[in-house]
Amino acid sequence: MTQNQQLATIAVLGGTGKEGSGLALRWANKGHKVVIGSRTAERAQEAAAQMNEVLGRGNVTGAANADAAAQAEIVVLAVPYAAQQSTVKDVESALVGKILIDVTVPLMPPKVSRVQLPDGGSAVEAVQKMLGDGVRVVSAFQNISAHHLTKLDEDVECDVLVCADDPEAADLVVALAEEIGLRAWNAGPLCNSVVAEGLTSVLIALNRKYKVPGSGIRITGV
Amino acid sequence: MTQNQQLATIAVLGGTGKEGSGLALRWANKGHKVVIGSRTAERAQEAAAQMNEVLGRGNVTGAANADAAAQAEIVVLAVPYAAQQSTVKDVESALVGKILIDVTVPLMPPKVSRVQLPDGGSAVEAVQKMLGDGVRVVSAFQNISAHHLTKLDEDVECDVLVCADDPEAADLVVALAEEIGLRAWNAGPLCNSVVAEGLTSVLIALNRKYKVPGSGIRITGV
Repeated sequence: MTQNQQLATIAVLGGTGKEGSGLALRWANKGHKVVIGSRTAERAQEAAAQMNEVLGRGNVTGAANADAAAQAEIVVLAVPYAAQQSTVKDVESALVGKILIDVTVPLMPPKVSRVQLPDGGSAVEAVQKMLGDGVRVVSAFQNISAHHLTKLDEDVECDVLVCADDPEAADLVVALAEEIGLRAWNAGPLCNSVVAEGLTSVLIALNRKYKVPGSGIRITGV
Repeated sequence: MTQNQQLATIAVLGGTGKEGSGLALRWANKGHKVVIGSRTAERAQEAAAQMNEVLGRGNVTGAANADAAAQAEIVVLAVPYAAQQSTVKDVESALVGKILIDVTVPLMPPKVSRVQLPDGGSAVEAVQKMLGDGVRVVSAFQNISAHHLTKLDEDVECDVLVCADDPEAADLVVALAEEIGLRAWNAGPLCNSVVAEGLTSVLIALNRKYKVPGSGIRITGV
């Protein structure tokens, strides 16, 4: 990966939410230009201003989702499952030729500790199908507790499984995760995202059973 | 768990295979009476004789699958995916009132590093549906490398995800796993087995990508 790629501009759609803002904060802290995307530009700009204040930098801006996607080289989708497909449709034309990192977990409230996968497998495959081959869709970050991300100096005790049909895109996202202090692995094709998406419900089940705030996984033997 | 339960007789159907024989060996080594099940009694008896020789004990016997299941209080299903449902049908009447631990991984050769789940979710749910409420079906051990199991003094660097709709049955299987030196977790209802079943393909993908013999997972934060 070149220095240019490392410092790519990253849009985080849903960047006002917990998971999205945690990722945005960490990338901004490493010097990336970050564009927070939200349904309204105002909310995104507020969140961006707060991040700039926390970090003492000026490299975070805010925009409505479609504008945010248009300004970035790498786009991160971190919206609730119910908004996943509609958000993708809103920004579709701005994604062509780019990498879309999908963080979506198909949780079905209220039973969030039960794995309830969409028909046909993973939620991210439906997005790749919708967008076609012109967008390199990568699945990642589903299992990382937002709570840990926002504490910049905290060691995150959970590995990232990265899945994509384009192995080079997966490797690039592995590097982006490592940049912000996470251990990450290229875990195979996009269909393997079923495991990462389902694992979040398993971790919620473990949190409840063992009364802990944030269980995670580590890959061993590598 | 009482001493009686801890020393329950365990039948391992498919106990001549790698995964099954590794589990059988470890439980026999801890003093359980173990009945190896196979399609023919002869193959099962040969495998049992070998195990008794390795262990220097006489607590392993062999029988055809249905007889093995009939003799045991706990039955482990460790056959290839293609034989899962037919084996269950063969032994169905011997399972009533017992715990069936299903180790099946729905691998679809040749693409074993791609998660390819059965229609409707996990492979184990189809078994529970077939057997009805009279059998407590528990999913476990899908991600443990057989290679590590057979080395009795080796620390297995992979946790066991245990899923069941009957939480007490899951807890009992967690204890059976801990008895043989494995870290195990009650990971929620049977539908969550989708993650454990799919994870095996993810680990195979990691083994290939990172050129390691046996990757695994550890649960963190518990």
